[in-house]
Amino acid sequence: MTEKQTWSQRFESALHPAIARFNASISFDIQLIEYDITGSQAHAKMLAHTGIISPEEGEELVTGLEQVRQEYQQGKFQPGIDAEDVHFAVEKRLTEIVGDVGKKLHTARSRNDQVGTDTRLYLRDQITQIRQYLREFQTVLLEIAEKNVETLIPGYTHLQRAQPVSLAHHLLAYFQMAQRDGERLGDVYKRVNISPLGCGALAGTTFPIDRHYTAKLLDFDSVYANSLDGVSDRDFAIEFLCAASLIMVHLSRLSEEVILWSSEEFRFVTLKDSCATGSSIMPQKKNPDVPELVRGKTGRVFGHLQAMLVIMKGLPLAYNKDLQEDKEGIFDSVNTVKACLEAMTILLREGLEFRTQRLAQAVTEDFSNATDVADYLAARGVPFREAYNMVGKVVKTSIAAGKLLKDLTLAEWQQIHPAFAADIYDAISPRQVVAARNSYGGTGFAQVKQAIIAARTQVNT
Amino acid sequence: MTEKQTWSQRFESALHPAIARFNASISFDIQLIEYDITGSQAHAKMLAHTGIISPEEGEELVTGLEQVRQEYQQGKFQPGIDAEDVHFAVEKRLTEIVGDVGKKLHTARSRNDQVGTDTRLYLRDQITQIRQYLREFQTVLLEIAEKNVETLIPGYTHLQRAQPVSLAHHLLAYFQMAQRDGERLGDVYKRVNISPLGCGALAGTTFPIDRHYTAKLLDFDSVYANSLDGVSDRDFAIEFLCAASLIMVHLSRLSEEVILWSSEEFRFVTLKDSCATGSSIMPQKKNPDVPELVRGKTGRVFGHLQAMLVIMKGLPLAYNKDLQEDKEGIFDSVNTVKACLEAMTILLREGLEFRTQRLAQAVTEDFSNATDVADYLAARGVPFREAYNMVGKVVKTSIAAGKLLKDLTLAEWQQIHPAFAADIYDAISPRQVVAARNSYGGTGFAQVKQAIIAARTQVNT
Amino acid sequence: MTEKQTWSQRFESALHPAIARFNASISFDIQLIEYDITGSQAHAKMLAHTGIISPEEGEELVTGLEQVRQEYQQGKFQPGIDAEDVHFAVEKRLTEIVGDVGKKLHTARSRNDQVGTDTRLYLRDQITQIRQYLREFQTVLLEIAEKNVETLIPGYTHLQRAQPVSLAHHLLAYFQMAQRDGERLGDVYKRVNISPLGCGALAGTTFPIDRHYTAKLLDFDSVYANSLDGVSDRDFAIEFLCAASLIMVHLSRLSEEVILWSSEEFRFVTLKDSCATGSSIMPQKKNPDVPELVRGKTGRVFGHLQAMLVIMKGLPLAYNKDLQEDKEGIFDSVNTVKACLEAMTILLREGLEFRTQRLAQAVTEDFSNATDVADYLAARGVPFREAYNMVGKVVKTSIAAGKLLKDLTLAEWQQIHPAFAADIYDAISPRQVVAARNSYGGTGFAQVKQAIIAARTQVNT
Amino acid sequence: MTEKQTWSQRFESALHPAIARFNASISFDIQLIEYDITGSQAHAKMLAHTGIISPEEGEELVTGLEQVRQEYQQGKFQPGIDAEDVHFAVEKRLTEIVGDVGKKLHTARSRNDQVGTDTRLYLRDQITQIRQYLREFQTVLLEIAEKNVETLIPGYTHLQRAQPVSLAHHLLAYFQMAQRDGERLGDVYKRVNISPLGCGALAGTTFPIDRHYTAKLLDFDSVYANSLDGVSDRDFAIEFLCAASLIMVHLSRLSEEVILWSSEEFRFVTLKDSCATGSSIMPQKKNPDVPELVRGKTGRVFGHLQAMLVIMKGLPLAYNKDLQEDKEGIFDSVNTVKACLEAMTILLREGLEFRTQRLAQAVTEDFSNATDVADYLAARGVPFREAYNMVGKVVKTSIAAGKLLKDLTLAEWQQIHPAFAADIYDAISPRQVVAARNSYGGTGFAQVKQAIIAARTQVNT
Repeated sequence: MTEKQTWSQRFESALHPAIARFNASISFDIQLIEYDITGSQAHAKMLAHTGIISPEEGEELVTGLEQVRQEYQQGKFQPGIDAEDVHFAVEKRLTEIVGDVGKKLHTARSRNDQVGTDTRLYLRDQITQIRQYLREFQTVLLEIAEKNVETLIPGYTHLQRAQPVSLAHHLLAYFQMAQRDGERLGDVYKRVNISPLGCGALAGTTFPIDRHYTAKLLDFDSVYANSLDGVSDRDFAIEFLCAASLIMVHLSRLSEEVILWSSEEFRFVTLKDSCATGSSIMPQKKNPDVPELVRGKTGRVFGHLQAMLVIMKGLPLAYNKDLQEDKEGIFDSVNTVKACLEAMTILLREGLEFRTQRLAQAVTEDFSNATDVADYLAARGVPFREAYNMVGKVVKTSIAAGKLLKDLTLAEWQQIHPAFAADIYDAISPRQVVAARNSYGGTGFAQVKQAIIAARTQVNT
Repeated sequence: MTEKQTWSQRFESALHPAIARFNASISFDIQLIEYDITGSQAHAKMLAHTGIISPEEGEELVTGLEQVRQEYQQGKFQPGIDAEDVHFAVEKRLTEIVGDVGKKLHTARSRNDQVGTDTRLYLRDQITQIRQYLREFQTVLLEIAEKNVETLIPGYTHLQRAQPVSLAHHLLAYFQMAQRDGERLGDVYKRVNISPLGCGALAGTTFPIDRHYTAKLLDFDSVYANSLDGVSDRDFAIEFLCAASLIMVHLSRLSEEVILWSSEEFRFVTLKDSCATGSSIMPQKKNPDVPELVRGKTGRVFGHLQAMLVIMKGLPLAYNKDLQEDKEGIFDSVNTVKACLEAMTILLREGLEFRTQRLAQAVTEDFSNATDVADYLAARGVPFREAYNMVGKVVKTSIAAGKLLKDLTLAEWQQIHPAFAADIYDAISPRQVVAARNSYGGTGFAQVKQAIIAARTQVNT
Repeated sequence: MTEKQTWSQRFESALHPAIARFNASISFDIQLIEYDITGSQAHAKMLAHTGIISPEEGEELVTGLEQVRQEYQQGKFQPGIDAEDVHFAVEKRLTEIVGDVGKKLHTARSRNDQVGTDTRLYLRDQITQIRQYLREFQTVLLEIAEKNVETLIPGYTHLQRAQPVSLAHHLLAYFQMAQRDGERLGDVYKRVNISPLGCGALAGTTFPIDRHYTAKLLDFDSVYANSLDGVSDRDFAIEFLCAASLIMVHLSRLSEEVILWSSEEFRFVTLKDSCATGSSIMPQKKNPDVPELVRGKTGRVFGHLQAMLVIMKGLPLAYNKDLQEDKEGIFDSVNTVKACLEAMTILLREGLEFRTQRLAQAVTEDFSNATDVADYLAARGVPFREAYNMVGKVVKTSIAAGKLLKDLTLAEWQQIHPAFAADIYDAISPRQVVAARNSYGGTGFAQVKQAIIAARTQVNT
Repeated sequence: MTEKQTWSQRFESALHPAIARFNASISFDIQLIEYDITGSQAHAKMLAHTGIISPEEGEELVTGLEQVRQEYQQGKFQPGIDAEDVHFAVEKRLTEIVGDVGKKLHTARSRNDQVGTDTRLYLRDQITQIRQYLREFQTVLLEIAEKNVETLIPGYTHLQRAQPVSLAHHLLAYFQMAQRDGERLGDVYKRVNISPLGCGALAGTTFPIDRHYTAKLLDFDSVYANSLDGVSDRDFAIEFLCAASLIMVHLSRLSEEVILWSSEEFRFVTLKDSCATGSSIMPQKKNPDVPELVRGKTGRVFGHLQAMLVIMKGLPLAYNKDLQEDKEGIFDSVNTVKACLEAMTILLREGLEFRTQRLAQAVTEDFSNATDVADYLAARGVPFREAYNMVGKVVKTSIAAGKLLKDLTLAEWQQIHPAFAADIYDAISPRQVVAARNSYGGTGFAQVKQAIIAARTQVNT
């Protein structure tokens, strides 16, 4: 038989052991223990501040809670399944330490507002950490970009060679995504960092508490304005999981590219041994496991987002036990996003070498300068759509003849259109093709240099 | 055989008709036509402004595009499947109207930045509209709240009676959710309202365009800083779909409650005929179809969010045709959210009547005042956990005796604990139970009145 | 620095420690260890059977593997993070035990077909277990049904009282869902129980292996016909996750009903103390945590299904590391489904008491016999739609008059239509209303008794 | 004001027009009209067969319904929004045609069992059609395979060259997936093809109907055994959506490969003009839009699956209006799957040409024969793991020396291990590497020929 629960006075008999196991959240909400203690300390201070308990009682509670924290950190306090959840575990241990005054801690509070507080404190910290991981990821992207402004790489649409671009420009696209991720997390943070403490079970409390006082002690920006909303809102979790999913979208895209780049066919990068793995049977293999795993882990974060939405669908007010299911998905998403950002940062910093010679050669061997021919004519007065159509024909006949555009003679160019002059050869050289796209945000070297300066500023602030 | 495509000069033969149908987006992207025209007009003005085309050419393009718009509005221009997509449809019709100058419109632009521009213009408008729908929904919640500050309703956790609350307080929880929805859409808007126009196919353009000029003409707040990112970013769509999903979460919760309230068992509301439907076989039925449908439609919006995440997962840079699949999910989500907000607003305004007598009686018939007894003792120095346990026992014996707490004699109370005095009866009367929860954000009448004033301000700004 | 990996001969340097941690699957695939050993034993026997190794070598491998198993069961063998994965961990420990012959185990095999084999062996067992859990769940439903054939309960559509039904009939609806779940798992099993062993890394092997031999040893029904498909197929996992999601759909529906039934408003069941929990602050609360948690856990299983679909989307052939992400979702879904079935079975068996008096009263107090009046007339020649409309009017006027149908006098009935006779009162009595729905599969008592007999047969086979 | 509804006798006032629009399903359930008519004809025949109506009445109803069908097919009968849904639309038009007897059609039936019947009849047909599409897709895969048994192509794991395979073998992997898809749909069909007709609103009916009679007329395999289950079960829809999602998984994987193969880097296939599209700005582009769109459309089918699961989560018995939301997702998934299968079949048949010379060269230029060297040694007694490690070193030194394995001299080989003889060169030639993987299901030519024979049999049955 299981130990009797804290709430057992209204109950005749104890929980069925299997049901006790099924209900218990201690196996995972133990991760919140330090936030729970911090929250309880603020609550105790407030109870004393408002005179609900005496200053001495407040002090005893705060000190006792600190002892629980230390015991936990030192591995001396390890609550088991009987504890039901982290809140009861802490309260019980506290009461063992400080005696009867421990029974006053839960005055004017419910587990409903308490767990909401804990979760927000946890997530707030994690968001800050993830933003730091994002910044390191951005930093390494920027470092590579700074060294590769004039390294050319084929640019693709539809995975077909489209127009060559600066490698720096390509990497800075991911910098921008990460920048957006950070800003988005900043917006999510605003809605995470609101205190539900003092909402009580659902309706507030009869005690003269001061919610703004605890909010201030806990560095919350504000407090929930409606108690029913405060205890049952999980918008902040869903928003976070959406922001986490978007980080994974971006990492999965970069992963896909690294996988392509390290293939025998692309050969754009060399994977270094420290970040690649082998096969159990094929001795030659060097596999890009890191980006593959990151791409795969994208699914689990999307899954957690979807799970949380499903949990909330159609729940009546206010708190329902279904909400206990919020935590594992949040924890796993936080851990996954951090691990993936870390792994990709290491991969970029130490595990990947761009094969610049291969890249330099790649941009010379296709028709990705065709737009520049059309632009050349359009800049000389031929309506763009006409120029485009002319060049389309040239490409067709060149392919048939096994030639590239640079192989056409000036006479051949002028047969196509009299506006062509000798400068066409420069206009379609890969370097010029890239340099010339100097519109704002474009791949032109001047633009890319500006973009790097701006990025450096962003990452340093 | 299908008509030859705009891009057909490089191609020997036409598209297979089934493939043409499969690829064509005109059946749904026609919804973007006015945004497409507006975007093209801004582009044309910019081409003239920067001297890429002459002022006269710019003027002709703008005027011609306006004619296309009018023809469309008047039903005279109805592009068919052969048009492939809305962009080609408009360019082609324009060229029929204005002649060769029409072929200059696409100078320094690609469909990749064009469709991104169109989608953002559309979504920007829709977000503004949805925020207006939210405001009307909030207004009707507030109106009912204002009339029902002192109407009591059982408050629930775990769908068990927990503590009675003010009906106004309950409805204001939804007001707060909608308020957050509006603020969240405001944050999404920031990342929607960025111009990709001028990013070109992927790399910018060789023409001396002015992206800030078009951005200003189109009321964008800023421009994408990286062209590869600009044409392939769909974060804004995913963020919107997440915000839309959260609106649906909130509406589904309210729907669940309305369905419960209108059941024979709850009888908290009467559904009016104008917002209920009958059965084809059971003559007595009056069904809450509106909230049921809203609850069901929640699934489709979640589905669109998931779909968009799946589409983006693992796509290499830059534009890929997969992105064409973004639109239908966005359109359907926009329409669903608007329809559901409208339907729920009508339901609240005209279709629902709270049965206040039944509510008044409901709050007297249970043990939802038990916390107040514990609080009563705790306020008189009994440690809360002890008080809680005492009251737990009282509840147990009362249930066994078929009594409610109000039925206990003062002697019985004092037998439980000597601190009880005659004022216990007032303390546990439903009205006082509600009034006493006067902590900030709580259900106490004074708090609720403050909350209504604050809400009125929010909805009016 | 981490230990060198098994595949490290082609590599100059060791893995970055953080990358090693990121890649390692041992923390969760250790759950497959016994299946891995069993699979390896079959492989070793086959290698000996086909003469690829000697009979003695085969024997040594099998015995050595058995020792690994025992060491693991006794807690003596606990592979750490350095082991990378369960396959290498076992092979390494085996080689420590048996010496060089251990290095022959991996002949004609790859981890790709090996992990596929392990996962299928695991899932096969779990499906069998889940089917047993389903059977126990069905048994308890059936037991309650057998005792409640003539217990009436309101039947609902749109959560509005529709027509009263037999409680047994209501519970048997869930029996049918579970029956379908079992059959569906049977179909999934067919596609789980196919052996990929011998598919090698992707292309088969140059050794004269006998895949049908290992399949037979491992009780697989058949072998994959295409090696590329065999190592990269995860359909079986997705199918399982869909079947698991459907089990959760059914449990979530029943959970919703139990939550409703145990509310103060419905009062259809009493929750027993052994399966309910209390509140930390509200002494009177007895909460239906079990069904709430089950309903909430539905989300996580849906999430795992979605995650697995996302993982597979767009992966080129054959094996990709992304597939390593399949396991945690499968494990958690298996555990969740088993725990939820167990908890609901206990809840039904011990935790729930139907309040039959309250139910008996409930079916007398509404208009859920209205269809029977329409049927009464239709059976006497009035076109159904006309009869339906007449009764609709009667309901409307009765509500206005505060009467139920049973309160109308015979004269009043005959004023509505002359076909009414004295037997109308019997026809609309709740018991007769239920009894009369004696069409196949209907709630009529005779039908329900037949259904119980059929169900008893199903659950016993 | 909207027209009064069929069920309006119990109602005082008409529906709010916006609510009527919100509730109406006619805009999409009109797609079910012919199934609705067929179902109603079977119902009418049964009513006559059982004597509930007269034979003449039965005849009139059947004939009248046939007239409704013809009017619909000829475009003469086009129900508008006022019709609410397809069921009422048909009943109303029928009654206009046949007079009062039309009002008898709905005897002993509800829209709840009716719409379930319609949806199952529709889906049953669609599954049969999709299985035909799958067969055509398999046929074209098989045709290409038959011509390419000895065409070699690099085989990949982790998108790294692993071991060369027969192109036929590679394509047959997709054949197997499609075969599984067909079998899975066969299993789904079993649970689709069950008749709910006669379940009534929820509880069966008081009329002496014969459900097996209608089931037989409509070619259902069986009937639902429980009426509450029959009207509220949507398992079959979810199962179908899961099977549809798996088809999309498979198509998305093939799509990814086609996209890779048609890239400049792979150049394994040439896209033909009839199945490729161009760019609006880059004249040289030929884009693989078909596989990109297929890959993108994968998301929408996953989304519909998720939506349907969400809809069902937590719904109490029996029918709820939420279920109306099942149809659009099913319709769109059916259409998407059919369109994608058709497009991919056309692409394979007419739009793709394998560049066999390029493929032949590709398999000679890498280390994908390294496993064969290890196997060579293992077959000569060297423990596999040792052999594997030796070869790993050879690969490392060869890469450093810029050599391939075929470039090593016999002396060099024998320096590595004395077991090497002159036949090593044959053993590592690409053709032999493929031919030698002759284990069951492997890529050896003999195996592939057997697989083709088996596949031909499967596709012809």
